[in-house]
Amino acid sequence: MANGKTDNDNNASSAKSNYKDLCALFINCTLKKSPGTSHTDTLLDVSDHILRENGVKTERVRLVDHDVASGVYPDMTEHGWDSDDWPKIWSKVDTADILIVGTPIWLGQHSSECAKLIERLYSHSSQRNEKGQYIFYGKTGGCIVTGNEDGVKHVAMSVLYSLQHVGYALPPQADAGWIGEAGPGPSYGDKREDGGRVGFDNDFTQRNTTFMTWNLMHMARMLKDAGGIPAHGNQPGEWDDGCRFDHPNPEYR
Amino acid sequence: MANGKTDNDNNASSAKSNYKDLCALFINCTLKKSPGTSHTDTLLDVSDHILRENGVKTERVRLVDHDVASGVYPDMTEHGWDSDDWPKIWSKVDTADILIVGTPIWLGQHSSECAKLIERLYSHSSQRNEKGQYIFYGKTGGCIVTGNEDGVKHVAMSVLYSLQHVGYALPPQADAGWIGEAGPGPSYGDKREDGGRVGFDNDFTQRNTTFMTWNLMHMARMLKDAGGIPAHGNQPGEWDDGCRFDHPNPEYR
Amino acid sequence: MANGKTDNDNNASSAKSNYKDLCALFINCTLKKSPGTSHTDTLLDVSDHILRENGVKTERVRLVDHDVASGVYPDMTEHGWDSDDWPKIWSKVDTADILIVGTPIWLGQHSSECAKLIERLYSHSSQRNEKGQYIFYGKTGGCIVTGNEDGVKHVAMSVLYSLQHVGYALPPQADAGWIGEAGPGPSYGDKREDGGRVGFDNDFTQRNTTFMTWNLMHMARMLKDAGGIPAHGNQPGEWDDGCRFDHPNPEYR
Amino acid sequence: MANGKTDNDNNASSAKSNYKDLCALFINCTLKKSPGTSHTDTLLDVSDHILRENGVKTERVRLVDHDVASGVYPDMTEHGWDSDDWPKIWSKVDTADILIVGTPIWLGQHSSECAKLIERLYSHSSQRNEKGQYIFYGKTGGCIVTGNEDGVKHVAMSVLYSLQHVGYALPPQADAGWIGEAGPGPSYGDKREDGGRVGFDNDFTQRNTTFMTWNLMHMARMLKDAGGIPAHGNQPGEWDDGCRFDHPNPEYR
Repeated sequence: MANGKTDNDNNASSAKSNYKDLCALFINCTLKKSPGTSHTDTLLDVSDHILRENGVKTERVRLVDHDVASGVYPDMTEHGWDSDDWPKIWSKVDTADILIVGTPIWLGQHSSECAKLIERLYSHSSQRNEKGQYIFYGKTGGCIVTGNEDGVKHVAMSVLYSLQHVGYALPPQADAGWIGEAGPGPSYGDKREDGGRVGFDNDFTQRNTTFMTWNLMHMARMLKDAGGIPAHGNQPGEWDDGCRFDHPNPEYR
Repeated sequence: MANGKTDNDNNASSAKSNYKDLCALFINCTLKKSPGTSHTDTLLDVSDHILRENGVKTERVRLVDHDVASGVYPDMTEHGWDSDDWPKIWSKVDTADILIVGTPIWLGQHSSECAKLIERLYSHSSQRNEKGQYIFYGKTGGCIVTGNEDGVKHVAMSVLYSLQHVGYALPPQADAGWIGEAGPGPSYGDKREDGGRVGFDNDFTQRNTTFMTWNLMHMARMLKDAGGIPAHGNQPGEWDDGCRFDHPNPEYR
Repeated sequence: MANGKTDNDNNASSAKSNYKDLCALFINCTLKKSPGTSHTDTLLDVSDHILRENGVKTERVRLVDHDVASGVYPDMTEHGWDSDDWPKIWSKVDTADILIVGTPIWLGQHSSECAKLIERLYSHSSQRNEKGQYIFYGKTGGCIVTGNEDGVKHVAMSVLYSLQHVGYALPPQADAGWIGEAGPGPSYGDKREDGGRVGFDNDFTQRNTTFMTWNLMHMARMLKDAGGIPAHGNQPGEWDDGCRFDHPNPEYR
Repeated sequence: MANGKTDNDNNASSAKSNYKDLCALFINCTLKKSPGTSHTDTLLDVSDHILRENGVKTERVRLVDHDVASGVYPDMTEHGWDSDDWPKIWSKVDTADILIVGTPIWLGQHSSECAKLIERLYSHSSQRNEKGQYIFYGKTGGCIVTGNEDGVKHVAMSVLYSLQHVGYALPPQADAGWIGEAGPGPSYGDKREDGGRVGFDNDFTQRNTTFMTWNLMHMARMLKDAGGIPAHGNQPGEWDDGCRFDHPNPEYR
């Protein structure tokens, strides 16, 4: 069938919910400006397809195409920069239920564009949602990493850590990616001599990308239905006002 | 009041659920055998107190007290080791809704005991739960890190990555810890000259430990009520049988 | 004495060489544009002072003040960018015997400016020196890291790894830094209420910065006197031409 | 020719020194006990061959075969452990000019045996050599990493950082390794259907292992000829006695 469904899919679909009210944002941190081909984009396509197939509204931003300032404030034009495109990207982050960070690997690390993205997400850590929690509470995060030789897990560690640190929830197996054998070589999606495309037949990569995408949908569905993470024990303002949420305070000192 | 509750707590408690059916397991990866004092244990106490105060059943294991083999199989006595205490610790991991890994920092890294724990958790990655998902699906994970000079975030990256990789869900801000200023110095809980104890008055550490604990409870509650992570798009057996869960398979190749 | 020398210094100075022909370059990867105060700069001052006191010619670049493109080529204006200040910074890197990378810590990681620096250094990995070795062979590298709460070692791992990967030699203890106790707080060099400045009296930080600086001088001296790393077994061109340098080739396959 | 030498080798050998007085120690941190096959051992063989071919005396230790205690003291039998084989391994580390750490990758990290090795090396950080420097000064370090899917660079970052932190010098490109394409698959040295062995024909891996080995020899030769790292500006005892080595002390405070 055109969309790859099989009878197995029908049998398995008992657990499917309705995802049509969810929004997902992909931020691709490739170093290549458009219209250059990003190998990371090619793998993001897989996740994007699955999300849209299930009614999730998706959007994609290639960070390097925008004039995003370096810094740790929400709007760097207030801190000495002539221009800063981050505020308009932030409005997309703010409304998305799911954020999927895509990044290439350079020298075993996430790209400098990805580092800039993390810094700019972090710059919103003083903001609160309507329940008094950090602004990212109630959102779900994941990441997709591509390189030609090494580093998916290391990069995912950094990216996923940053996402959960600012307030994203992470479902199981929230990362996926592709790398080739040690050494220089083709990148994800490059044409092979046999007409196939590199990594497209890598069962591990395709399965993990699929599982990640579904787990992000499941977690986002759960959180949206619950109205986010329950607001008890995790509101900085309440803590600052002296609320201790069963912390063993008096005995402890 | 004896347990540190204030009026603020009462106001804030509207979001509290019942947590009495939840179990939490702390695994402390200190290098010190009992009865040596573990600074990490002292910070685990805070989280443990909050959990018990809310009816969660808790248990603590100090890994180095047990004769746990190195290796990547569930029972290393089947692979050339004379003895292996892991299987009996595994049964505790298997029944716990929440796993909190505690580890000290050595040279900026998690301890070798923590590395061994991660390897042994990973050794169960071929097992499935009753829904055909990885055995850890439906569980919630977090970590607590202490050191005297540096490395909480780096260690948390490694530990949290490993937990989500095998199948744990991570709520927002699933880590907490304490370190002192750069250089050698006292460790968490050491007696100070003024009679106080190091780190006990560190608002950041105490708040993060509290928030982490509550977020773990919230996520575990949510997952238990939902019967775990929904079983669609994340079952390795179904994937191996050809089910593709809207992966853009035919067009993709 | 004005420069802090003591009789002990005189006794110890037997091992001192002449360093007047050496050049050192500091690249500060703060996110703050000039004339904003960089805490990292304040610690770089210590190392800079020691180098100059011994006749080493030093220079400092604040990367964020320059219009450096993202990318992995030596000159990004040849790859779709309107401008790129990297080539003029590269000429400084190319002539410096010692490179000291300074970076702040954000979310436990090196800054995005530092990530960009690493990518641009890496972009020269296809170039060779006059002996046919990678262009960075014969140079010595180190790093200085400051943050207010955590991550010196993690950041140093990333930076030092990248430096040795492209071809820098690393002496023992090639990193130094300062962080405060867990949680937000003052940064290196901030004025304290007692009139002192944060971290200036941290013996560990000051000692490590001193030792690092001397070890960089020792290694650079050694390498300069030896004409760099000996050219045998490490020339990519020779390898590509079939030279195997005692690699157990025939038996091995 | 039997040892793979070619005319090119003869041309290139002008820079060769005599290495017959050097000792190198390989510590393999596989989780597999002897006589199990370690894929890492298979790659260590390449480096070992090159060293011996040049007269370097080599020795190999498989850590997991020994009853090495966890802990951060030189002899853990003085700290509550019944036995500890580390002291006898330490004597080998102490006399080796070159240490090459071999480790597999598990979940993107170095093995728990490798973590234990690093902790035990670190346990000697209070010891000094005859010049009053840290005991590891004057030695040269490197690492070799194998896995079947990902993580050479991440693991090398951790291992190399630890080595330079305790006092090893690192030459350029002090690491080498092999990993396959993303996902499970054969490991280094496994037999392929075509009779070849996995990774043996990976030019990148073989070249890097060769270059690493030569760079370790060059650095060890240089350091041995110089009597180690010059003893000025890097002796903890002198620092503690008030010697400041041109640190801008008085003006600085």
